[in-house]
Formats: sequence, C-alpha cells, structure tokens
Amino acid sequence: MSHRVAIIGASGYTGGEVLRLLASHPSVEVVAATSREYAGKPVSSIHLHLRSILGSLKFTELNIEKMASEADVVFLSVPSGVSQTLTARLLEGGLRVVDLSSDFRLKSPSLYEEWYGFSHSNPGLLSESVYGLPELHRDEIRGARLVACPGCNATAAILSLAPAVREGLIDLEHIAVDVKVGSSEAGRQPSHGTHHPERANVIRPYEAEGHRHVAEVEQELSALCGRRLRVAMVPHAVGNVRGALATAHVWLADDFDEAAIWRAYAKHYGKEPFIRIIRSGPVKYPDPKYVIGSNYCDVGFAVEQARGRAALFAAIDNLMKGAAGQGVQCMNIMLGLDEREGLRYLPISPV
Amino acid sequence: MSHRVAIIGASGYTGGEVLRLLASHPSVEVVAATSREYAGKPVSSIHLHLRSILGSLKFTELNIEKMASEADVVFLSVPSGVSQTLTARLLEGGLRVVDLSSDFRLKSPSLYEEWYGFSHSNPGLLSESVYGLPELHRDEIRGARLVACPGCNATAAILSLAPAVREGLIDLEHIAVDVKVGSSEAGRQPSHGTHHPERANVIRPYEAEGHRHVAEVEQELSALCGRRLRVAMVPHAVGNVRGALATAHVWLADDFDEAAIWRAYAKHYGKEPFIRIIRSGPVKYPDPKYVIGSNYCDVGFAVEQARGRAALFAAIDNLMKGAAGQGVQCMNIMLGLDEREGLRYLPISPV
Amino acid sequence: MSHRVAIIGASGYTGGEVLRLLASHPSVEVVAATSREYAGKPVSSIHLHLRSILGSLKFTELNIEKMASEADVVFLSVPSGVSQTLTARLLEGGLRVVDLSSDFRLKSPSLYEEWYGFSHSNPGLLSESVYGLPELHRDEIRGARLVACPGCNATAAILSLAPAVREGLIDLEHIAVDVKVGSSEAGRQPSHGTHHPERANVIRPYEAEGHRHVAEVEQELSALCGRRLRVAMVPHAVGNVRGALATAHVWLADDFDEAAIWRAYAKHYGKEPFIRIIRSGPVKYPDPKYVIGSNYCDVGFAVEQARGRAALFAAIDNLMKGAAGQGVQCMNIMLGLDEREGLRYLPISPV
Amino acid sequence: MSHRVAIIGASGYTGGEVLRLLASHPSVEVVAATSREYAGKPVSSIHLHLRSILGSLKFTELNIEKMASEADVVFLSVPSGVSQTLTARLLEGGLRVVDLSSDFRLKSPSLYEEWYGFSHSNPGLLSESVYGLPELHRDEIRGARLVACPGCNATAAILSLAPAVREGLIDLEHIAVDVKVGSSEAGRQPSHGTHHPERANVIRPYEAEGHRHVAEVEQELSALCGRRLRVAMVPHAVGNVRGALATAHVWLADDFDEAAIWRAYAKHYGKEPFIRIIRSGPVKYPDPKYVIGSNYCDVGFAVEQARGRAALFAAIDNLMKGAAGQGVQCMNIMLGLDEREGLRYLPISPV
Repeated sequence: MSHRVAIIGASGYTGGEVLRLLASHPSVEVVAATSREYAGKPVSSIHLHLRSILGSLKFTELNIEKMASEADVVFLSVPSGVSQTLTARLLEGGLRVVDLSSDFRLKSPSLYEEWYGFSHSNPGLLSESVYGLPELHRDEIRGARLVACPGCNATAAILSLAPAVREGLIDLEHIAVDVKVGSSEAGRQPSHGTHHPERANVIRPYEAEGHRHVAEVEQELSALCGRRLRVAMVPHAVGNVRGALATAHVWLADDFDEAAIWRAYAKHYGKEPFIRIIRSGPVKYPDPKYVIGSNYCDVGFAVEQARGRAALFAAIDNLMKGAAGQGVQCMNIMLGLDEREGLRYLPISPV
Repeated sequence: MSHRVAIIGASGYTGGEVLRLLASHPSVEVVAATSREYAGKPVSSIHLHLRSILGSLKFTELNIEKMASEADVVFLSVPSGVSQTLTARLLEGGLRVVDLSSDFRLKSPSLYEEWYGFSHSNPGLLSESVYGLPELHRDEIRGARLVACPGCNATAAILSLAPAVREGLIDLEHIAVDVKVGSSEAGRQPSHGTHHPERANVIRPYEAEGHRHVAEVEQELSALCGRRLRVAMVPHAVGNVRGALATAHVWLADDFDEAAIWRAYAKHYGKEPFIRIIRSGPVKYPDPKYVIGSNYCDVGFAVEQARGRAALFAAIDNLMKGAAGQGVQCMNIMLGLDEREGLRYLPISPV
Repeated sequence: MSHRVAIIGASGYTGGEVLRLLASHPSVEVVAATSREYAGKPVSSIHLHLRSILGSLKFTELNIEKMASEADVVFLSVPSGVSQTLTARLLEGGLRVVDLSSDFRLKSPSLYEEWYGFSHSNPGLLSESVYGLPELHRDEIRGARLVACPGCNATAAILSLAPAVREGLIDLEHIAVDVKVGSSEAGRQPSHGTHHPERANVIRPYEAEGHRHVAEVEQELSALCGRRLRVAMVPHAVGNVRGALATAHVWLADDFDEAAIWRAYAKHYGKEPFIRIIRSGPVKYPDPKYVIGSNYCDVGFAVEQARGRAALFAAIDNLMKGAAGQGVQCMNIMLGLDEREGLRYLPISPV
Repeated sequence: MSHRVAIIGASGYTGGEVLRLLASHPSVEVVAATSREYAGKPVSSIHLHLRSILGSLKFTELNIEKMASEADVVFLSVPSGVSQTLTARLLEGGLRVVDLSSDFRLKSPSLYEEWYGFSHSNPGLLSESVYGLPELHRDEIRGARLVACPGCNATAAILSLAPAVREGLIDLEHIAVDVKVGSSEAGRQPSHGTHHPERANVIRPYEAEGHRHVAEVEQELSALCGRRLRVAMVPHAVGNVRGALATAHVWLADDFDEAAIWRAYAKHYGKEPFIRIIRSGPVKYPDPKYVIGSNYCDVGFAVEQARGRAALFAAIDNLMKGAAGQGVQCMNIMLGLDEREGLRYLPISPV
C-alpha cells in the first residue's frame, strides 16, 4: 500500500531533494508539490536534474482542504515563521506533518522571541511537536503527528556531541562548536552574498555572535545531561555546494581516555542505520566528502589525553541528513516503514 | 536468481563506481574485487564512501581459474594494454567480459599501432568484441561474450553527433568536437598534473594533436554514415571532479533547419532509457551538472540556420554513462535483465 | 605629472579591477568613482579587498560637468546601451574616454540593431572610435579620444586567430571558436543563474545560437584578411571565477605546417609586451590558470598536419586582458605612457 | 644599491612566491635559485606563470661557497630537518638567512624531539634565531642574522590571539583554535591525499591530536602573557587552493566587553602595515578571500558578552603572509628597507 505525500514549498533545494528521494521510495506516492512562485509549471522546469523523472507533475498553489483529502503526510519546506500558522490547519485536516523549518523545533515559546524575533502563534503545539532527530527521539517520532526536523548545522553539532554529553565525559562549561558548511545550506534564493564570484572560495564566519541553531543545540544537549548547558558555536561558509562538518572542541572531564570516548559512541550509535563511526584509515576523521548524496552521518574523534582535550566530529550532507534525508527518515518512522526506505542512495565519490 | 560478478582492477574510480552500482543491483552479487596493490585490504579502506556498505569484502589477487569457477561476468578496469592478454583467458574460462579499458574498442589492429603504440596480441577477438554503446549496438550486445565500453570523451562525442551523422544532416568534412571533462577522468593515480593546487581551476587543452578517443569516434561515426569520416577533437581539462560535455561544432548540409535536427534526435533517441533531449527551460542546453551521479546522457543542439551552422551537445557523468554506468547497462543487456537495474540513481543536484 | 582619472560605474567587477590597477599606477590619480547605487558609501565598503588602500575615496553620483573639470580621462564601465549617450557628453567636456562597454566597438550602426536590438543614438562616433585591442590598433589608439575595449570572449577569440587569419594560413569558411569562461565575466549583479549552488561546477553552453561578441570578432578578423569572414562561436560557462580560454578549431589552407603557424605568431606577437607564445613545457598549451591577476594573454597552437587541421588557443584573465587591464593598457597608449605602467602585476599561481 | 638574494629550494610553491615578489622588488636582485631536482632547467619551466619574466634564470645545484660570494641574503625553503644543517654553514659564509622552514622556530631543543621527532643538530643557534613575525618581534628582526618565519597556520593562530592574550582579556585555560586552510599549504609534492579528485571539496580535519604548529603557537603566546599557556588546535583542509582562516574560540576573563577587545586590537595592530582590523560591512568578519595575493592579515572578532565568550579571527593568504610574503617582510626589516617593498601587491578579487 502506498502512502500519499504532499510537499509544501517544493521548489527549493530541500523540496527538490525530498522529491528526488520519494521518486524512488517504494511505499510512497507524491500527490502534490506546491510552490507559490511556480504554480502551473512542471516540477522539472525548476529541478532540471529531475527532467523525465517525475512525469508531468506540476507545481500547484497550496489548497489545504484539497491536500487534506488527497494526502496522508505533508513535508513543509517553508521560510521561518510561515510554518507556525500552516501547521495547525494541516493537522486539523488530519494530515501528519514533517516540518523542515524551524518553527516547531524549540520547546519554549520565549526562545522564539529571543532567537527568531517573533512571538509564536501556536505555542500549544510546541509541546506536542517532536524534535526530528531519530538518534535521540526515535520512539517519540513513531507516534507523532508533528515532527520538526533539526537544522543542518544543529544536526551535525548535536550528533558530534551527544554521546559525550550524555555519558558525562566532557567539561560542560567549555564547549566550542566550529561548523563549516556549503552554499546549498542557504537555499535557492539568490543574493549578493551567494553570487558565485562572491561565494566561491570563501572561508567565512557568519552569525558568530549568535547563530539561531544554538538554541536547538542547547535544548537537546541540555536534555541529555539534565542541566542547562551552553555552547559557543560559530558557523563558517566554505566553498563547497554540499556538506557540513561540525568540530566540537572540548575538554575532558576527569581522566577519561580515548577508549571511554569510543565506548560511548559505540554504545549510542552502534545500531544506528545512518551513523558510521570513523576511526582509522587514510582519512581518519569524518569528512563530508564521503557522505555526499547519502543520509549518512560520519562521526569520529581525536583525543589528546595529556592535554585533557578532544575534538569531536560529525560530517553530513546538509541537504540529506541535514534536511530532506532526515525528513524522509522521520516519515518512515512515523509511518512504521523500514527506516531506510527511499534512503538507499550510497554516497557518491569522488565528487 | 542472482548473477555472480567479479571486478578486476577494483581499486580505481571506475571500479569503485561499479561497486557502488552493483551494491544496490537487485539481480547481481559481487563475488570478487581484485587489486594487485591492495590485495588483502578491505574494499572500504580504499573506497571510503563505501564504509559499512560492502560488509567484509576484501580486495584479492587475481586468480583466473578461481574467478572462472565463482563468477559469471567480469568487469575489467585495467590500464590500456593489460586487458588484451587477460581477456582471452577469461573468455576461455567461460566468463563473459565487460571491458572498460580501450583494448577491444577498435576493430582494426593497425589502429592500435597508430594510436596506442602497441601491436595487439589478440587481433582475432577484435571482430568478436562489441562496442559497448547500447544506443548504437544494443542488439549485438545482447548476445555478446565480450563488450568493450567506450571512453568517456568518446561516449559524449559520439552521442552528440550520431543522429546528425546517420541522417546526413551535416557536412562530414568539417566536424570539430570540443570536449571539457573533470579530473576523475584521469583515474586514481596521483601525478604532478593532478596535484590539487595544479589541477584546480584549470581550463587546459590536452592531447590536442591526436587524442586517442578520436580513433573510436571516427570508427563509430564512419560506420553510421557508410564512409570514412574524420573529426577534429580537442579535450580540455576543467576544474570539476565529475562531468563531461562534448560540443560538436558542425556546418549544415543543404538547407536543414532546427526541426530536421530535432526530428533526427527524437527518432534515434526518443525511446532510449538513458538519453534525455534538452530543448528548453532556464538552462536550454545540456550541462553535466544535471546528470551527476546518474547514467543519463543529456543531448541538445543550437542551430543558426542563416549561417548554416549548428552546435550539438552531449553531457554525461564521466564515471557513469562515461564508464561504470555504461558498463552496468551493457551487462544488463548481456544478461537479459532490465537495462535500468542498478542504475536507478537519479542525478544529484545541486552539487 | 599625474593624469587625473575618473571611473563611471566603479562598483562592478571591472570598475574594481580598474581601481586596483590605478591604485599602484605611478602616473595616475583617481579623482572620482561613480556609482548610482552606492553614492556616498566608501569604495572599500563594496570592494572589500581594497579596504585600507583607497583612503577615504567614496562613490559619487555622476556629474559630467564636475568630472570634466576634474579629470582628463574617464573609464566607462556601464551596461550595454548606456555608454552611447554618455560618451558624447564626456567628449564634449574635453575628456578622453576608455569605454569598457560594447556601445562603440562595432563600426556599422546596423550591427547594433542586429546584435544588440537597439538603434544606435550616436552613429557618427562609431567611425571615430578605435577598437581597443593594442595588438591590432596600437597606432590608432595613440591619438584617440575614444577607445572601445573589446569584450573578454572577443579578446581571446581574436588574439587566438589574428596571425593565422592575417597570413592566410587557414580555411576562412570553417572557423569554430569554442570559449570557456569563469563566472566573473557576467558581472556583479546576482541572478538565479549565478547563484553559487547553481553556478558552481557547471560546464554550460550559452548564447550558442548567436553570442554578441561574434559581431566584433567577425569585424576585426574580416578587416585583417580583407574579406567578409564568419565564425561559429559558442561560449561555455565553467566553474572558475576568473579566466577565459578560446580554442579556435580550424582547417589549414594549402599545405601549411606547424613551422608556418609558429612563424606567423612570432612575427605578429614577438614584440608584444603582454602576449606570451606557449610552445613547450609540462603544460604545452595555454591555460588561463597561469595568467590570473595579470594582463598577459598566452597564445599557442596544436597542428595535426596529416589531417589538415589545427587548434589555436588564447588564454586570458577575463577581468584583466579581457577588461580592466586592457583598458589601462589602452589608456597608457593614449597618454603616451609606458604601456606596462600599472600592469606590472605578475600572474599569481597556484590559485 | 641592490641587495643580492639567493633562494634555496626554489622550485616549491613558497620558492615560486618568493621569486614572484622579488621579481618586482626595487632594491633586490635574485642571483641564484637552487633546486636539486630541476638544476639546469629554466625556472619558468616549473613556475609556468613566470614565463617571460625571469629572463633566463635557471635552477642550480646548491654550492654554498659560491653562494656566499654572490649573495647577501638567502631564503631557505626546504623540508623540515634540512635547514638545521645548512643554516650554520650559510651563516659562517657571511650570509643572512630567512628560514621558511620549521627548524629554527622553537627555542627549546626538546620541543624538536617532542613535536618533530629529531634531535636538533644546532641547538646553539636556536637562541640566536628570531621568530619571524614582525608584529611581535620587529626590533629583534632588525639586527638578526637568522630569522625563522612562522608556519602559515601558526601565523593566523597567533595573530588572531596575540592582543587578547597580551592584555589578559581571555581565559587562558580554554583556548580552541580551529584553522581552515587551502591545498597549497601542503607544498608541491603530489600524493594520494592531494590528488585533485580526492582533495577537491574536502572539509577534512588533520593532525587533530597534535598539529606541529601548536608548539610555536604556545611558545609565542606564552611569552606574551608570561605564563605557560596551552591551546587546543585543529587544522582542517578545505577546498581552496590559497587562504587560511584561524577561528580562536575563547571565553572572556572577567567582564570584558567588545570595546575592550577592540581597544586591544587597535593598540597592538593600529600601526601595522599589513594588518587590517575588520569590524563592519557586508562581510563583517575576516575572510581570506579578500587578502588573496597580498601580504595582508585581516583580523576581527565576535563577542557574545552575555555568554562570556568570543571568537577571534585572522585571515591570510597562506603563501604570502603565511610564508613568502612574511619572509620578504622580514628581509626588508633585516636590511633596513621599507617594510612594504616588493609587497605592494593588492589583494585580487573576486578570484
């Protein structure tokens, strides 16, 4: 039996990636792809790589009633602030929602005021919403109506740190997360900063005084250790199109050694279908180069015990495990499907 | 029932790509992957993107007898000159061979002396061998024991020109094929010319006085038009890792217009599973950017009738339709499988 | 004594490059840099690389009277169609003009209708204007009031072909010029096509049915051989930021050999300060990689005499010899200065 | 009067960059360029961008006696461990030495055993050698016979942190320096890891458990604050050819605010000819993109006072301020020349 899926905001990069994944998903049928800007145009006139693949699928205007009658699940790929109003109506229509935006990631309404500058219009749904990181919330996702998928930088940051934080292996007062991420992260809208001559070859810090993803990283890591934890986090734009690496610089609690770190990661990630622990080989730390096109998150670490420090790494494809792939993984869990369906794309290399 | 496949020379880029494709091929099992240099090492210690995917598969030394007893089909991904001696022994062992090297592409032994500088050791097999371009030789591939897959630049050049040459639409005395190709085309062996600081950002002509692929391009196009045809061909290295574009600059025969060109391409390629004819849209000519990771070849053309000229384009992923993907396509045809099995990877974009 | 220079349209890439060059030009002082969009802002707030270098120079609104009283020479870096009206007023004000736009490159007003789609408002000035390619028009530039610098693709195309055309070495009926060029060529204005994720890694033909630079290439080459000559020309966008390569695919007239080609290039370019003839070495053909940041044009060729064909190459930095550098070279000639002043930047490599 | 300069190990990237700079240095003449591998070959056959520029200069074998008679100053651009033996002989010959290798950077011989794995053969010279960072040691460089220039990652790390460390503004127990650097940093020798398809698009941590530059960073910063200080430092290879960015993640001592940080940087760097403090504009933090080709180091910072943290940035061109440019700056100081001679190259942008 096929589940019927709609995508709201399907003309962006995340929407395109969801379409690419669902096109070969064995248990899913795409019934609608909305786009205000491109309604009426073939999906393949915008997603040029999908020419000949999606048949005659066209972008449509959003019609929630129609969608409620035609679809079972909806992916929301809309700008910050838009999802909060749409989601309630979609849920009322009986749809299940995978929200790829930031509107339902945070549990506390006040955090939206602090980090996003708006007063949340549906604070009641914040407690129902599940943070869509299967490695931390698989059981809650299973029964959820509303899953809010993490940001890409947050995904990498949290997955690099989670086992060490949960097991109490590191000094929680001094965590610095340095993220490097490719240009597709900023979406499909051109601007001066994303103009190719300006964006190529950058190594550029941004939002260094308060990146929005800090809020969700602190929320999730604090929950893991049971106390209010803070992270220093600086994202950097680099010249890649795809890929994100989080490097968490940490200091070791007590006298923990590399074996303890290793055990923590093996314990928490050993059975995860999309996490690979990298520990040796010619490239001994994670590098997003080897996960491009796939839903894998490669994690690893470097421990300098004599200095009481370590670096914890997580590498993802920002459009896959950092967005669309993670959304499909969550959808699979919500629907009781094999978590890997539609996500069997192996990484492409070299690229 | 599963076909048993071996790969000789599996540590290179083409070998890695064959492994990636066969890993998710529903009717095939990889039984051996040989590498002289890495025998005994896990395949995933070289193909880092395939970590956790190929189980405990290890590179082995080549043992033809053992291979003959364990496998049905062999992919050969070895340097020019090596395949000519191996192939006869593999065929004698009852194996069917998909040769990704250049040793059995040309029909005339003298061409090997002229273009490759060696005297072919198995000229008798040259007539049996089928040139592995399904769009031209599908029926012959079907029953073949030995298929010799085209070079990547040749694949793009031939597919850009074939319908126009076959239908007599262009001046056969003046064909100039300008090819641009990414760095993965040169294989996995480092050299000064492929050192990253030297190879990044190049726009570099090479073999401009006689690229080896000219021989096969002329052989195949001459067969299509029934006369001895010559092409001027200049490949250029560009900064990409993957992708190849052939631009064939041609002059129109008689008074042919764009519609005639269009009809020729539709006639010959309209039912091809891996050829897409690009004719409109925001990017109106083929660009390898939109086929990366897939087996597609996008073709298109620009006709300036008043000047009696046209440009014919073909864009491929050089490791896919230009090498491994084409090899798997040929294998599928040889084995009577659906031609698209194992090749359902959609292009990844943006990347 | 210092010449006083103004730049109209100084916020673009060409304007920025003119500023970079003039900042270290020993005989020139920049007295004004206009920009409608950024008037009032420091030049270094847009040209970030020039921070701390241009003192407190600010963009101003264009005031032709004021400019006429303060400056001797003006660089025009404005969109197609704008220069035709400004230039007459600047000349009337006694200024000498280096026009980097296309409005005065063509000698025949009808060509503007055919290629640019507008009726030229100052056809009388077209005959006075000198085409600013010093290698072809040095003497005329010397006394000129108005020099119209070539487009970047045209510069590479013409310099690759000029000696062969002038000396009658090639078949003039079949010339195909394949150009590859980086993203800075399209200027500073963002668009969907120049958005980094879309523009990175492209190998993309554009204007393949009639690139505007064809008009000037044909005009200049026709003048060299004394007959109406036509070229087939296809530009391709590649992933670089800077650099352009023209590959002219040609057929040899009579029985000319490599030595004849070599002599023609040595004869015409041997004393040119900014042309280097590349003939040997580890990279034996021109590659823009080795001219980046400089005003050099590297030319070279590959001759396959047995087949009666050749490829002629010219490599430039599109913002230097393809725009700003060439403009400064022309200005130096106009002012009777050493042609190399302000252009002593050596190529930067590797980059 | 012209100073006579020799370069030992001139075929590498740093050697090539020294040659590029000295070719337009008004007070210097290059008298010798040695290379064991390329002795007898023209310098321009290896440094292709310098074709036509260095006249007939050829690489020679090293002959110290000859060099001592012909040159006044020597640049050493040789692998780690080679300089320690050469330098004593060069000094004995009366030459002054600018060492671009690591052999004389560290003051304590034991550090060479710990970090480089060899016992230093000339420990006596370690105390005479001056660490070639003009911003910290200008006066000592002035009279020095032997200057040891910093590593590129160390240059960026130290310059990002120096004012904050010196003024006691930060917690010295928790300093994490995250460095991102382009491929030219690893030199001209090809390897599997620098092969273009492998090296393109990486975001790859390396030496994360003890990068050699840590030793010099700790030495220099400890000297600034008068106590033994340690840094956690992780370099990352990114896809650029040139450029390095250091991001120092720090926690604020006491209640220091952004103004205090700003004052410290203005105090220490306000008069430095090659340091620019970046504080505002469309790109508000340093990015190596805007210093490429120049000797500038752009520094800047982001302060999140409420969280008691800051990020301190320094961006350089790794071959310029990170190697050759810094060497020339040191040479100028040693010789009493204007520090900026030969270094008037402005950054090239966009590139």
